[in-house]
Amino acid sequence: MSQTGSLCVVGLGPGTSALLTGQAQAALQGADVIMGRGGYWTWVAEPVRDKACIGLPLTQEVARAQLAVERALAGQAVSVISSGDAGVYGMASLVLEVLERHQENALLPDVVVIPGVSAVNACAALLGAPFAHEFAVLSLSDLLAPWAVIEKRLAAAAEADFVMVLLNPKSARRQWQFARACALIGQHRAPGAPVGLVRNAYRPDQSVMLTTVSSLAHAHVDMLTTVIVGNSQTRCFQSRLITPRGYMC
Amino acid sequence: MSQTGSLCVVGLGPGTSALLTGQAQAALQGADVIMGRGGYWTWVAEPVRDKACIGLPLTQEVARAQLAVERALAGQAVSVISSGDAGVYGMASLVLEVLERHQENALLPDVVVIPGVSAVNACAALLGAPFAHEFAVLSLSDLLAPWAVIEKRLAAAAEADFVMVLLNPKSARRQWQFARACALIGQHRAPGAPVGLVRNAYRPDQSVMLTTVSSLAHAHVDMLTTVIVGNSQTRCFQSRLITPRGYMC
Repeated sequence: MSQTGSLCVVGLGPGTSALLTGQAQAALQGADVIMGRGGYWTWVAEPVRDKACIGLPLTQEVARAQLAVERALAGQAVSVISSGDAGVYGMASLVLEVLERHQENALLPDVVVIPGVSAVNACAALLGAPFAHEFAVLSLSDLLAPWAVIEKRLAAAAEADFVMVLLNPKSARRQWQFARACALIGQHRAPGAPVGLVRNAYRPDQSVMLTTVSSLAHAHVDMLTTVIVGNSQTRCFQSRLITPRGYMC
Repeated sequence: MSQTGSLCVVGLGPGTSALLTGQAQAALQGADVIMGRGGYWTWVAEPVRDKACIGLPLTQEVARAQLAVERALAGQAVSVISSGDAGVYGMASLVLEVLERHQENALLPDVVVIPGVSAVNACAALLGAPFAHEFAVLSLSDLLAPWAVIEKRLAAAAEADFVMVLLNPKSARRQWQFARACALIGQHRAPGAPVGLVRNAYRPDQSVMLTTVSSLAHAHVDMLTTVIVGNSQTRCFQSRLITPRGYMC
């Protein structure tokens, strides 16, 4: 046991305690302090009962990571929680980056990343089975990445017939990027290719809808929506998406 | 309640009961019969105790799906289990495809796909935090998909600087595909770009190793290895991969 504390970055799954893993629960139960943001606590209310919880709002990700690292360096067992999987555009890389800036310290806390059911997989499950072939996961948020890079990746994935997952398609401040993404996808994919839209997966106001590439630009999406664009093989069956693996040919 | 049974396709997570979700456990506990293949039972021994379990070996995926659908049509509650997430190259699409062939039936069983912690996310977590930007998931198995399609996707993902996940990189029968993939990746990515190799994630003989793009072709990989290739931003810190999200610039 080192003199420093420990850092767990914990993926909580998409939004229901039923999709929390035992390992995530154990990490929460073993923590001295749990760092997250408001709203995430609802589906982990039971394991965090009687725990010291610190919530900092959205946009304060760096402050959250810094405070977590400081507490761990001071000897506490810290769990940083993240919805879905903590690695997919989540807190895991930021916590490691903040820790990296303390590498002159003789003793650094151990970091464990506990994987969770990603929103990517959760939304795909609600839509059926779109991921039986290559798929690419993209975020349309250009707040932390240049749009030119995102656009290049969008075009490459569309052209190479990846099933595509679009996270953060729109927000109050980011509107045109989704239209641009739809146009790029439309250049490479058939107008009738099926698309699934999942909003608030596994949360009380969950919605699951199907549309097509040609109608996608007119669909209602926001930052809580995950968009899954089928590839040339994907088809619909009973309101589900199937990308056939190839067993039945 | 319809007269037919039900079909759950259940993702079990990567290989430890600690990463099984409550929803997956409940599905197993509620099933009349559980269909899987040998070896998958070890980490679900407790929830499947006293259940009727049918194991058919690897390569008998179609028979497994057909039997599951037949049992559900006959009125049973059937759970088809899949390691990791059931949607990622898993049993979910095959079960839906088999069911599709019975669509002349007046009553079809409901199908629920229960997402799990994917091997993709589990291996990424063991490696640190490679997925803070766009990533692409590919299988190098060309048993059910043309190699030309896989190769096109490999080249596109490499060129567009996706973090890349390579599943099924090699098997006893498939050897040259991995060398070809390494060559393609090497054309587009720096020789020193970090690569993580995870074998048997969360299983007793787990191994986690780091290498680079230039050394990847010589690494020992097999069908139990997941390869995660960093992008131009990915760096190593304390035997971990970090792809910085961009918060700390």
